[in-house]
Amino acid sequence: MRQLAYIWFNIHKVLSHIVEQDCWENNYNKEAYDLHLVRGKRMELEEVMYKRRSSREFLTKEIADEDIDTLTHYAMSGPSACNKRPWEFYIIKNAGIRGELRKVTKYTDYVSPLIIIVAGNTKRALALQLNDFWIQDCSAAIENILLGATSLGIGSCWCGLKPQVRPVKKVQTILGIEKHIVPLGLIHLGYTAQEPEQRSQYDKKRIHIME
Amino acid sequence: MRQLAYIWFNIHKVLSHIVEQDCWENNYNKEAYDLHLVRGKRMELEEVMYKRRSSREFLTKEIADEDIDTLTHYAMSGPSACNKRPWEFYIIKNAGIRGELRKVTKYTDYVSPLIIIVAGNTKRALALQLNDFWIQDCSAAIENILLGATSLGIGSCWCGLKPQVRPVKKVQTILGIEKHIVPLGLIHLGYTAQEPEQRSQYDKKRIHIME
Repeated sequence: MRQLAYIWFNIHKVLSHIVEQDCWENNYNKEAYDLHLVRGKRMELEEVMYKRRSSREFLTKEIADEDIDTLTHYAMSGPSACNKRPWEFYIIKNAGIRGELRKVTKYTDYVSPLIIIVAGNTKRALALQLNDFWIQDCSAAIENILLGATSLGIGSCWCGLKPQVRPVKKVQTILGIEKHIVPLGLIHLGYTAQEPEQRSQYDKKRIHIME
Repeated sequence: MRQLAYIWFNIHKVLSHIVEQDCWENNYNKEAYDLHLVRGKRMELEEVMYKRRSSREFLTKEIADEDIDTLTHYAMSGPSACNKRPWEFYIIKNAGIRGELRKVTKYTDYVSPLIIIVAGNTKRALALQLNDFWIQDCSAAIENILLGATSLGIGSCWCGLKPQVRPVKKVQTILGIEKHIVPLGLIHLGYTAQEPEQRSQYDKKRIHIME
């Protein structure tokens, strides 16, 4: 009986291994999958959508360069009018510059280990009446960063700059950038002590169906 | 030998089942998982990010109400300045209205089974200098719709309206909406015959690191 159990145990082990391999081999590299799970990159869209909330208190733990790289990849996967890609991303690790940026408005005054400023390069955007499409393009890029951060377990807060005239000028001065590069949003990023509850702010009154 | 093979086959079948159950039982309801797989809602963020591309040719197959519901839920999960949620969503199923909307600009002239117009309600947005934040809020909502559509296997094309003055007025007239509700984007949605390749348009030159 004990011998039978031993044989059974071994068959189970071998078969489990085969079946488990089968589960992923078609589409995935198992090790890469595990790594991704740990890093959170495989979070499903629906969960990300409802988990993305604004955080305003952050831990001091730094964000890995690899994660910053992921976020900027996501940002530049977004759509842009006529594919102009009129965005610029300022990755502010420097504590002194982060300290200055915080003070730009009272709504940017949070302490985080990383700030990303997303700005529109108005010279690379469409011309004339269509120039302002860069605002929509950069907003979509920002939303991609926020969703990407959520999927990596990183909290975020999107603080608006433009259309506020003085904060835009202050950021241009702090970053030393030219006037045709217009800062749209300041994103605080960092790990948080608490994870806010998932939610949608769905409101049926905002839906108008024309059948 | 044949009998042994038969026993082996059955043990394999039973164990595969056990192991497969094990794969999901901790976190998932297996039936719900299968259903989601079919519906695509469990697509992972990274895949969605790189799969989202503009489609301009669509099949006639209609989009289910349940999917429209998902998309509007995602849209209203996006952030908005001071949580004003200044958005309105016009779900245009009516073929006549869709035909009129197509003609609004030469860049909206595609044939799709569903159009969603995302508009800003400027009376529900912030006041004075901050009023224009609705453009960024609605852009994030549009990006959420595009990503949601991608995860459901639905193609999409975001066609910009504002800041183009005449197309905005035309859409207001077609939809019969008041002047304080400003159409920002027209989204064509539909299934497509071909799935475009995944890509990021990442460009290292757009990244400026301040350490």
